[in-house]
Amino acid sequence: MPSFTVYKGSQDGTIKKSSTTMPDLTNDQVLVRITASGLCGTDEHFRTSDMVLGHEGMGIVQETGPGVQHLKKGDRVGWGYEQSACGNCEMCLTGRDTFCADRELYGEANLDNGSFASHAVRREAFLFAIPDSISDIDAAPLQCGGATVFNALRMYNVQPTDRVGIIGVGGLGHLAIQFASKMGCEVVVLSGSESKREEAMRLGASQFVAMKGKTSLDIGAKLNVLLVTTSMQPSWDLILPVMAPDSIVFPLTVSEDHFQIPYMPFLMAGIRIQASIVAARHIHRKMLHFAAQHNIRPIVQEFPMSEEGINKAMQTLNDGHMRYRGVLIPQ
Amino acid sequence: MPSFTVYKGSQDGTIKKSSTTMPDLTNDQVLVRITASGLCGTDEHFRTSDMVLGHEGMGIVQETGPGVQHLKKGDRVGWGYEQSACGNCEMCLTGRDTFCADRELYGEANLDNGSFASHAVRREAFLFAIPDSISDIDAAPLQCGGATVFNALRMYNVQPTDRVGIIGVGGLGHLAIQFASKMGCEVVVLSGSESKREEAMRLGASQFVAMKGKTSLDIGAKLNVLLVTTSMQPSWDLILPVMAPDSIVFPLTVSEDHFQIPYMPFLMAGIRIQASIVAARHIHRKMLHFAAQHNIRPIVQEFPMSEEGINKAMQTLNDGHMRYRGVLIPQ
Repeated sequence: MPSFTVYKGSQDGTIKKSSTTMPDLTNDQVLVRITASGLCGTDEHFRTSDMVLGHEGMGIVQETGPGVQHLKKGDRVGWGYEQSACGNCEMCLTGRDTFCADRELYGEANLDNGSFASHAVRREAFLFAIPDSISDIDAAPLQCGGATVFNALRMYNVQPTDRVGIIGVGGLGHLAIQFASKMGCEVVVLSGSESKREEAMRLGASQFVAMKGKTSLDIGAKLNVLLVTTSMQPSWDLILPVMAPDSIVFPLTVSEDHFQIPYMPFLMAGIRIQASIVAARHIHRKMLHFAAQHNIRPIVQEFPMSEEGINKAMQTLNDGHMRYRGVLIPQ
Repeated sequence: MPSFTVYKGSQDGTIKKSSTTMPDLTNDQVLVRITASGLCGTDEHFRTSDMVLGHEGMGIVQETGPGVQHLKKGDRVGWGYEQSACGNCEMCLTGRDTFCADRELYGEANLDNGSFASHAVRREAFLFAIPDSISDIDAAPLQCGGATVFNALRMYNVQPTDRVGIIGVGGLGHLAIQFASKMGCEVVVLSGSESKREEAMRLGASQFVAMKGKTSLDIGAKLNVLLVTTSMQPSWDLILPVMAPDSIVFPLTVSEDHFQIPYMPFLMAGIRIQASIVAARHIHRKMLHFAAQHNIRPIVQEFPMSEEGINKAMQTLNDGHMRYRGVLIPQ
């Protein structure tokens, strides 16, 4: 039986080459030949699991199942963290399919399939047509990193007149700066040191603030919105005084800890802490269109799609040296 | 010079009788003769402060300042936690005056004035006309307790089709049950023991759940909204599994601790944690109208407005024996 190459996590956390048997495609399944895959912080969380890694997929449709309606061989498609949803519940029917009770997210199903691979089998309904102007390499990091920051801005109605703070200039942050500034927002980037000031301003920031060693922040007008894109939560004693009343905080990264915030300053300012994950499909589509329209592109570091390449990419991410999103390219 | 009786906090936490000099009324100031005052948990927080206590005020207009435009001697008026706001900032101009940077809340200004008193001097702009059908005794607890729970439901667009959980049947909770059920919501009351089941159902609950000793909750459909009205935060491990995706949690009480919630369950369900305080003025007015329309009334325990009466009322509240809101009545 024919098979394709995949790269899986393993008990000691090193990524190992393996293979998945090519299935007969059923229903709306599509076989995609992968041309690029982004590397996301959440891949790190699954590196010790016996599953195929990768969920910022980009490729070319190679074969379509009997129920496929719109895609055809040769189409350029991408996919992200969400693999499936029921299509029939309140969440699905109201454009919030990422919260469907039967959703299948990365790591929850199809563990013999992923974007660290030569091919993948996905449902047509969860594949996204990629605008011609966005290259495969640039499209990959938009599928999760781009979708995550865009979802916060769009699903929760951030306004062009809002002043948006972004903590962290990394895989998510460097995309958030571009999306928010192109939406018309004033963007205030809050970073540890001064090292990324120039890059942040070039990407569209209106203001850059290095927080290291500061006991209070002087940023002028307060922030209506805050995207926390760093894996460490910020010092709320530093941040809360610069949040406007009735403002929104999005903690966008994952953590095994508790989310904690000083109660009274949060309460008396009427702050909203909004959990936001990757984009539902209609928002994902708008994200791709908006990126094409405004020439929003990730800044990527390329690695070969191989055991060595993936392990090296993950090490670079772990060391905090990725500028700003790793992309794996089949050789 | 004439003066009026007031009751103040003191270093050891006992409430002491004192007096405030009757000022010449300026601008939109109004002298109110107090007919009833609610007792709120936040009064407890100020009982060791050298200030006049009480902020669920109810009385009769006795005299009006030169700038008063609408109120006249004899009008029945109430007031709550907010004493003043600038009227000119974005928050004031968008119906969010409780978040005005120059707002004056209880405990922040006019410390020689409060509702534990024979009289009080207030700004006309922050006094509310009381519907004829609501008695003075019933009106008092609506000014803060009622406004706080109604604000969460109205300002943040809770829908009649929502399933609303209410943790705690006390000063806030017993009003929240009535408001939410009259808005058409299904109301699920979550209480410690079974002791308040009958009362909760009578007030409009659709369902009552005693949480004590439970390691998981079986409540049927999940909750779209949760009002936490207890001073202790609930066990989130128990509560989060019954929250619907994209639902809202309102932590309504005050605490000196950090607000804490398990990060991943909160994140992956797309939950919104919304800080909500007392009502802005337009919402406070709607609250009074809605209470009159639907015959929503607090259940009160009366105490005399005297040193002895106030101290006894505060002790009853502290002991957890108030059913459900204390009201002080001038003798």
